[in-house]
Amino acid sequence: MSSTISPAQLRQQIRAGSHQTNTSGYCPGYVQANVAILPKDWASEFLQFCQRNPKPCPVVATSTKPGDPIITDAAADFDIRTDVPSYRIWENGEMSGEVSDIGDYWRDDLVTFLLGCSFSFEEALIADGLEIRNITEGKNVPMYDTTIACRATERLHGNMVVSMRPFKPADAIRMIQICSRFPDVHGAPVHFGDPEAIGIHNIDSPDYGDAVTLKAGEVPVFTACGVTPQAVIMAAKPPFCITHSPGCMAVTDIRNSQLSVL
Amino acid sequence: MSSTISPAQLRQQIRAGSHQTNTSGYCPGYVQANVAILPKDWASEFLQFCQRNPKPCPVVATSTKPGDPIITDAAADFDIRTDVPSYRIWENGEMSGEVSDIGDYWRDDLVTFLLGCSFSFEEALIADGLEIRNITEGKNVPMYDTTIACRATERLHGNMVVSMRPFKPADAIRMIQICSRFPDVHGAPVHFGDPEAIGIHNIDSPDYGDAVTLKAGEVPVFTACGVTPQAVIMAAKPPFCITHSPGCMAVTDIRNSQLSVL
Repeated sequence: MSSTISPAQLRQQIRAGSHQTNTSGYCPGYVQANVAILPKDWASEFLQFCQRNPKPCPVVATSTKPGDPIITDAAADFDIRTDVPSYRIWENGEMSGEVSDIGDYWRDDLVTFLLGCSFSFEEALIADGLEIRNITEGKNVPMYDTTIACRATERLHGNMVVSMRPFKPADAIRMIQICSRFPDVHGAPVHFGDPEAIGIHNIDSPDYGDAVTLKAGEVPVFTACGVTPQAVIMAAKPPFCITHSPGCMAVTDIRNSQLSVL
Repeated sequence: MSSTISPAQLRQQIRAGSHQTNTSGYCPGYVQANVAILPKDWASEFLQFCQRNPKPCPVVATSTKPGDPIITDAAADFDIRTDVPSYRIWENGEMSGEVSDIGDYWRDDLVTFLLGCSFSFEEALIADGLEIRNITEGKNVPMYDTTIACRATERLHGNMVVSMRPFKPADAIRMIQICSRFPDVHGAPVHFGDPEAIGIHNIDSPDYGDAVTLKAGEVPVFTACGVTPQAVIMAAKPPFCITHSPGCMAVTDIRNSQLSVL
């Protein structure tokens, strides 16, 4: 893992096919984003869904018009067809392929969405001296399906997926303050404490990612998760859709600090 | 109770001796403050203690020089000798009297401190739609001694006193966000959840104030309390000190919203 190269240098490697794996730990200080690419007729509804559910679906950047593969909001030269390490192709809600370049799949009606990811706020928490358990333990953050309903649109509906990080209460209060500054990367948590209250029956058995240690005196703190929009889209089974492969994010030129509203 | 009169009108009544009771519910929108008046040689150390412990001891206003009874930071005509409904006189840590005017006790070396009080943030929470249990139940907020040590100065030391308000976790998160805007009235809470973690053995038996109902699904949220500086001062037994009587606050011309840092 090299953390010294710039986002532009990393994207150059990705574009050249020499980096096709996850982007965790690369380019600290810069926003990494979840990717969703949808045909125009689904894109407008998805944007409405994001507007109604900003905590799980914070839109950081979009293409300026359908069919345009250059996402200037993310970086002047960001080409969504080549600049993500790995993509998943979905047809009618089923994954039909995993590729490192979507040039062959590109269409004039595709709209790109980059959605904020927890890497940005985790960096701010660590900079403040807080311990992020999934990072300390070298695991993927544990994620859980919940009974918290998203606000639906005509075809898009479902429950929120949340990530969980354990903190002592005083640290949880600080975490809430810091995350509140970052509405574009999920913002303040949605719940803490009793997992059952949001429909999580076994904290040691996450629906996605890995379980982490919950120490005595700590409470689980639950944050809206970027897996939510993917799960909602897949459940709606649009005829065509492209996402990033898990952990293989869009690495942008946007600085994490620029997402802070305060 | 009249909530329609201005702070200046209420102070006029207090000064005339026609209002000698508590000020709760009066002059909504305006800052009410805890009062501590100390001789100069203790005042400088008390200010240092407040600086080191801003959550329990948020200084909203002080006299501009020792002996000056007009607290212009609070209101252009605020006379600390007459404008608080009831005062307690303390000698060597023991209460020696309770009076409605301290003109007879005034000295050229006395320094006045007005410290923020929870009324201000409770108003902001109610305005946001949150329920404040002690208000709903018509009780004094429950307060507890804790094992959270204040940062000491030479003669002033002790543990933090906290107030407690129950919330559902999602409301507690919102409460933390709102209170974070108000560092001058105790700011964000210091703890939530397990009372034992901060040395509170029986939540139903507060050390000050009244117990309130904790409903299923709610967690107790603990905020640093303005009783802390009084307790610390009394324990240090300065030869002379004046405070307000409980609930009989200094009503200022400062608007609660003006204390918001955001």
